[in-house]
Amino acid sequence: MSQRIFNFNAGPATLPLSVIKEIQSGLDNYKGCGMSVMEISHRSKWFDDIINDAIIRIKRLLNIGDEHEVLFMQGGASMQFAMIPMNFLKDNETADYINTGTWSTKAFKEAVIQGKKVIETASSEDRNFSYIPKELNLTADAAYVHITSNNTIKGTQWADFSDTKGVPVISDMSSDIFSRSFNIDKFGLVYAGAQKNMGPAGVTLAIIRKDMLEKIPDNLPSMLKYTTYADKNSMYNTPPCFAIYVVQLVMKWIEETIGGLSKMEELNRKKAAILYDFIDNNTLYKGTADLDSRSLMNVTFRLLSEDLEKKFIADATENGLGGLKGHRSVGGCRASIYNAMSIEGIERLVEFMGEFARKNG
Amino acid sequence: MSQRIFNFNAGPATLPLSVIKEIQSGLDNYKGCGMSVMEISHRSKWFDDIINDAIIRIKRLLNIGDEHEVLFMQGGASMQFAMIPMNFLKDNETADYINTGTWSTKAFKEAVIQGKKVIETASSEDRNFSYIPKELNLTADAAYVHITSNNTIKGTQWADFSDTKGVPVISDMSSDIFSRSFNIDKFGLVYAGAQKNMGPAGVTLAIIRKDMLEKIPDNLPSMLKYTTYADKNSMYNTPPCFAIYVVQLVMKWIEETIGGLSKMEELNRKKAAILYDFIDNNTLYKGTADLDSRSLMNVTFRLLSEDLEKKFIADATENGLGGLKGHRSVGGCRASIYNAMSIEGIERLVEFMGEFARKNG
Repeated sequence: MSQRIFNFNAGPATLPLSVIKEIQSGLDNYKGCGMSVMEISHRSKWFDDIINDAIIRIKRLLNIGDEHEVLFMQGGASMQFAMIPMNFLKDNETADYINTGTWSTKAFKEAVIQGKKVIETASSEDRNFSYIPKELNLTADAAYVHITSNNTIKGTQWADFSDTKGVPVISDMSSDIFSRSFNIDKFGLVYAGAQKNMGPAGVTLAIIRKDMLEKIPDNLPSMLKYTTYADKNSMYNTPPCFAIYVVQLVMKWIEETIGGLSKMEELNRKKAAILYDFIDNNTLYKGTADLDSRSLMNVTFRLLSEDLEKKFIADATENGLGGLKGHRSVGGCRASIYNAMSIEGIERLVEFMGEFARKNG
Repeated sequence: MSQRIFNFNAGPATLPLSVIKEIQSGLDNYKGCGMSVMEISHRSKWFDDIINDAIIRIKRLLNIGDEHEVLFMQGGASMQFAMIPMNFLKDNETADYINTGTWSTKAFKEAVIQGKKVIETASSEDRNFSYIPKELNLTADAAYVHITSNNTIKGTQWADFSDTKGVPVISDMSSDIFSRSFNIDKFGLVYAGAQKNMGPAGVTLAIIRKDMLEKIPDNLPSMLKYTTYADKNSMYNTPPCFAIYVVQLVMKWIEETIGGLSKMEELNRKKAAILYDFIDNNTLYKGTADLDSRSLMNVTFRLLSEDLEKKFIADATENGLGGLKGHRSVGGCRASIYNAMSIEGIERLVEFMGEFARKNG
């Protein structure tokens, strides 16, 4: 196949083509410096400009003031699962975890492994994580409450964030950061692997409120303390430079091509509406998440049988619509429609789904 | 500047131009799959082929058999500094550390932070780390002995590795892996950040002997245990896919363009010889490392004054020879001449150094 497909993969995921083209055109000689962006020193002016511009754009897009620090780390959300209790949960404290699926469960387990006192105060496991719990039963003096804002596998998303009465919220936003506006103030820490809405795999964004930095114990290994990253502009050691560079370009694309985060959100709501409307009005397809908990990013659905799902995924692939297979742990189908998925891609998908329903209904 | 320079940066460092060109040409559509290599799922056949080919080539190049596992991790050598005592040093055990400079010192400190019993059994600090110690005074029943095989900042390198009488050697090989052949058998663990001899920043190679995996405690966070990576072919969570892809291409370049590791070593010895011979025969320049401890990768030298060094670095930059400034902690000059630095680059450098000496001697 010589053309690009519409890529509905859950992550690593589709990137804006203009960003890929920009990386490509200068890959052997970054801005005329005589080196590839992969070859420049992280202590150079060129890289300083990249990382600082990325941070400025992130702050502007999310309306972040001086109370939060923007950090670039490694190890994905899974490393954050381990670092969060290590940094923010002392032995005499407890933390609340809301369980909305696979990733929340993993985050909880990494605290348990460390012998920390964590409470699963709410869960949607009773109905296979098909909804976001409404009764949270939060502990008044918890060190933090941990949530997963969007659940890539189960196709659910927090529509809004509850008031936690001063308890810092820590949120894994790997699969919906930069997809919509939100108020950063109540969040003690927001973290996200880049490979869905921000860039390629290999860098993790952390946005941390400065008062959280004061809680971190001294006796942690340097690379496992948020303070190390905050103190050194994320360059205590060599950062994942290339991945940060791509993040910078994606942030620039949101600001300058899309027109900012509210435009991005408008587009994402429109894309999700087209797809969910189609699913709700066609008997061959059935959405798996409760209506009020549906994700704007990962649209999960089933067909009438597993055989039909297999055929659907195979036919879609042949028609240039890739990555529609559900996560191996749950099966079914999933269209991940992150920022870089165009309206055109959604229209093509819906058109294909209609044809497939006519032929196989 | 429209041309590529000769890049003597210590890391991130120069990459083979043919590798950069290969990445560049297919960046918008990897092998006709319709996606960028940055956009493909790590659970896809395409990425499986990349990571498995990288591992096969690494094993072949280093002559690694079934006793060792090849792992891809994140966080650079600094994360390894923390993980090593966490994984391999129980509370009733001690480990030996040989201190040959900045990075060895950091590795030692990360064990101390964790309250582990570590002994600095040898050090070259008495003469500003300008040599590799000969008397190692190893502890007979140490859990491991940690060394830094090449010292990027001080310009020294272990010419050979001593017999440790069964104590596993753990070596940071960030700045000399794949530069020469060595016998992997005595190493319990070899690790290396990619950004010098292997690829871009953002992935860490670990080669671990299988008996080491049995020593790892169960109660470590998943991302901080080597077993997690060994059990899941380095894909417990999303790996740094793009960086691994570049590593694969660099390994292919060593095998197919250079002709293997012994050819690579021959070339590296030749390059270092040209440069050291020049330095030893010109009174304007003075090498900083003892003759028997000189690094084949990082050639550190001083000029007669700091002012002259500043001028040297500035004039070199103007002449398309970049990255010759010594590390900010030691000053002076340094030419990092990793695998991807060509003989032509060395010849151009020596030619420039000669001219500079004639004009400023």
